[in-house]
Amino acid sequence: MDIKNKRIAILAPVAWRTPPRAYGAWETVAGNITEGLVARGWKNVTLFATKESITNAKLVGFVERGYEEDKTQIPLVSTCLHISKCLQRADEFDLIHSNFDYLPLTYLPFIKTPMLTTIHGFSDPDILRVYHDHKDTYYASISDSDRDPDLPYLATVYNGIDLSNLTFRETPGDKLVHYGRIHLDKGTHLAIEVAKKCGRDLIIAGIIQDQEYFDKLIKPHINDTSIKFIGPVDPVQRNALLKEAYAVIHLNTIPERFGLVMAESMAAGVPVIAMDLGSCREVIADGQTGYLVNSVDEAVERVGKIERIERKKCRQRVEENFTIDCMVEGYEKVYEEIFRKEAQKKRPSK
Amino acid sequence: MDIKNKRIAILAPVAWRTPPRAYGAWETVAGNITEGLVARGWKNVTLFATKESITNAKLVGFVERGYEEDKTQIPLVSTCLHISKCLQRADEFDLIHSNFDYLPLTYLPFIKTPMLTTIHGFSDPDILRVYHDHKDTYYASISDSDRDPDLPYLATVYNGIDLSNLTFRETPGDKLVHYGRIHLDKGTHLAIEVAKKCGRDLIIAGIIQDQEYFDKLIKPHINDTSIKFIGPVDPVQRNALLKEAYAVIHLNTIPERFGLVMAESMAAGVPVIAMDLGSCREVIADGQTGYLVNSVDEAVERVGKIERIERKKCRQRVEENFTIDCMVEGYEKVYEEIFRKEAQKKRPSK
Repeated sequence: MDIKNKRIAILAPVAWRTPPRAYGAWETVAGNITEGLVARGWKNVTLFATKESITNAKLVGFVERGYEEDKTQIPLVSTCLHISKCLQRADEFDLIHSNFDYLPLTYLPFIKTPMLTTIHGFSDPDILRVYHDHKDTYYASISDSDRDPDLPYLATVYNGIDLSNLTFRETPGDKLVHYGRIHLDKGTHLAIEVAKKCGRDLIIAGIIQDQEYFDKLIKPHINDTSIKFIGPVDPVQRNALLKEAYAVIHLNTIPERFGLVMAESMAAGVPVIAMDLGSCREVIADGQTGYLVNSVDEAVERVGKIERIERKKCRQRVEENFTIDCMVEGYEKVYEEIFRKEAQKKRPSK
Repeated sequence: MDIKNKRIAILAPVAWRTPPRAYGAWETVAGNITEGLVARGWKNVTLFATKESITNAKLVGFVERGYEEDKTQIPLVSTCLHISKCLQRADEFDLIHSNFDYLPLTYLPFIKTPMLTTIHGFSDPDILRVYHDHKDTYYASISDSDRDPDLPYLATVYNGIDLSNLTFRETPGDKLVHYGRIHLDKGTHLAIEVAKKCGRDLIIAGIIQDQEYFDKLIKPHINDTSIKFIGPVDPVQRNALLKEAYAVIHLNTIPERFGLVMAESMAAGVPVIAMDLGSCREVIADGQTGYLVNSVDEAVERVGKIERIERKKCRQRVEENFTIDCMVEGYEKVYEEIFRKEAQKKRPSK
């Protein structure tokens, strides 16, 4: 049987529409996997997501709108109803691919269909209690670094990004750029330090995720000339922003799980200077598409060496590793392995 | 087969130990049901609760301590693991009696054992989405008034209280008493108004659940002479408090679901003046064990008529309706009805 006839259920969260109107990382990935599978010829793909979601696959939903977009909903009510009702249809599928954190795993002992869970991050060490209780299922990580040593992973499958609205530009801009969530974890304050020490202008963009952090450590430095803050950017605005970029400064203070911003920047041809924590060394080819550093001073020093980076290589690295097609190809291999393992289970032992 | 040989699983929440050390309403009821069944000769009762719980039934737990007593736990992690692992053993039971809100219902389609859910309250109208999605299961309400019109209830079973440390006293004290959670819902500020208008001393006791409410509307009136606040009380302190009571003032501002405080007060022989909202008229026999009122002024007027209430009748009402034994007897009837209905389902139709 052609593997592309297998019946696949993609389980998306219901915090946001799939694909999200703006923010919604897990819904974005779930949507990209779904559309990617359809584009690659899979014939029986069903997306479980909010009812108003948009897909070329078959859509099944039980929750009208994302609970983040409709505050009358109790998130757990929407979440548990969505998961329960999706999994009640488990028998209709050959594989369920969950992009929805740990809760679906607690329903797994009640169904027969195999489940692949992509772990998009460990929000708290306590959630490991659920994962460790389910070691006989299938897991994928989103980077080699974001793994729990006690879980049996089948593979790392990097997130794939949509290259539309990420125009490759051979000619660099002259600004430093920092964008993403404005949060201590992402080191916005360190980007400011780097800019000041280099004497280069900095543009900061993104949603303010920690208002206190922003007010105390970021806002006092904003002057609308050398240090600008432009708020959140949509894909078109992001494209314009990256046009200005000499380099993207991404001095994360905790290990990155994957690092979407780094891949997007490189897609536009912009080298990235990133803290060598977590997945950064998997996304950036050190010295080829940017630099991995361990301090602000190292970052400052590397800004001086940005011109050694070939911008074409940045784009190329993304095209070869971090596109939606790469991601879906990665998952196809994982699905194939799961089908093989499941077939072995069913074969009577000699 | 003797019904008392049936295998019953009582599902308690895991916020607190069962029975709780202090606060923990649902765990208290789950514990009382469990111990009551054992006391009444049920031979196969299993309590699913935190591992450190105490019971005369068989204890099964997967979570060491209540998540409210161990803040390293994410409540949903403990909750969903507990529910999932309990229900994975569903086949070992003839009936699962859930005292754990709506989440277990979302696992119900995956198991064959019937479940009775006691709905201890609708914390938010949105949780009705889960209940309305599960109309072919069994429900009990804790008062006739706390019911959703669209749910198929088998019965109301009032909460039963433990009469130890609730000494009946023929002779009244001379204070007004208000106790329970200090919260707008419970009308602590209205009890103060009543006391001032009557010119009687008031003692207030209980945990402060809304600090702002306490600071603004309660604290300014406390003077340690005519209006005293003594903080939370344990059962022994509660007994001493009720000894002082001429009447308990319970002018709830929203419908009561059941009203433990009213039952406890009557058990000690203390008449209760309560707002006629929700279950109050089911707990109090108006004019017999207290008075139902619609305003502060009516309450003041009724304080003047407290001596018409026979304190023995207060105690008697509790003994006849609100003991643990009454509650368990009520559930026995419900269980019996469920077994009958389940047996009918299994019988082939002619």
